[in-house]
Amino acid sequence: MSEIKPEHQRHTARMQRKKAVVDEHIAAAQVERGVLVVNTGTGKGKSSAAFGVVARALGHGMKVAVIQCIKGRTDTGEEGFFRRFPDLVSWHVMGEGFTWETQDRERDAARAQAAWMLAARYLADPAYGLVVLDEFTYPLKYGWLDLAPVLSALAARPPLQHVIITGRGAPEALITAADTVSEIHQVKHAFAAGVKAMPGLEW
Amino acid sequence: MSEIKPEHQRHTARMQRKKAVVDEHIAAAQVERGVLVVNTGTGKGKSSAAFGVVARALGHGMKVAVIQCIKGRTDTGEEGFFRRFPDLVSWHVMGEGFTWETQDRERDAARAQAAWMLAARYLADPAYGLVVLDEFTYPLKYGWLDLAPVLSALAARPPLQHVIITGRGAPEALITAADTVSEIHQVKHAFAAGVKAMPGLEW
Repeated sequence: MSEIKPEHQRHTARMQRKKAVVDEHIAAAQVERGVLVVNTGTGKGKSSAAFGVVARALGHGMKVAVIQCIKGRTDTGEEGFFRRFPDLVSWHVMGEGFTWETQDRERDAARAQAAWMLAARYLADPAYGLVVLDEFTYPLKYGWLDLAPVLSALAARPPLQHVIITGRGAPEALITAADTVSEIHQVKHAFAAGVKAMPGLEW
Repeated sequence: MSEIKPEHQRHTARMQRKKAVVDEHIAAAQVERGVLVVNTGTGKGKSSAAFGVVARALGHGMKVAVIQCIKGRTDTGEEGFFRRFPDLVSWHVMGEGFTWETQDRERDAARAQAAWMLAARYLADPAYGLVVLDEFTYPLKYGWLDLAPVLSALAARPPLQHVIITGRGAPEALITAADTVSEIHQVKHAFAAGVKAMPGLEW
């Protein structure tokens, strides 16, 4: 047998110390409850991170609701895929496109209100383990929706229900209310280098 | 009929100008090719954003390979879920846990090498539209793998194949080689507030 090298022993000792610290943190985190996640910032990944969690939740047999607040297109890969699980997934495309596509603020505001009415129903339903409010920061940011009733409904939701809100420019009060907040910074994007939005990657 | 309000007209004019700019950018991005994405940073969402794109790719009927380089557990929601599609998804858990769990650098390095050998096969196979190298920055960062052959294999991959690499501390040369890079900054995390890693959200 080969002898145990000193650097190997040092590594092992360092990792044992690290494991003790990690284990302590894990032992300190014992609260079980629904988590409010906000994915904001300018980079790619805010919505796809939410859809990844949809897959994760489905793997645990949870019911999931997804409400898309801006997007109007209904041909995305994610929608087509997750609609194959109608018993578990409720998917709603409630938008009609970006503000520069609709060019009609009153109508945008009315659509946002309708999306919120629907969202509020899921936020009151303990059968749903995960509710994704995709691109929901925009109605708040543009003032189409008041923040106060949204924060109240989030606070009053079933205790084990997770919620993920995505979109740029999340209001400060929403960040304060959230448990986990990721700000996705765009370091670079293929689009700026002339690459088309590719199916299976961007939509 | 109600008359058209001046603020409505101003909004419409502003949105028409914005649409012209957006349309010009879209028209300028016409290259169709596989995109190399890197999700790095300390925040939540690096892997889940990749898994969201897996769902998106499956919605377009693409074949997907996922190679998890560090994680050893095989009970995650995402794995259980995506393994239901064996014709399209090849899922490999190649790790044995974090460095402080294995406490054995030689073995970690050998596992990383095995993961890379497998990854290289998918990166040479045009049947796969998306290859996810989950937690792949760590073997590079820790020096278990050389970067040069990795960059060569990425550059030589099939022209329409997308690759997503996740993990903290992506090496600079990988960021340079990538098309789209998101740095996910942790603003806050429920774990620090004492909330356990919840099934369906964190795993």
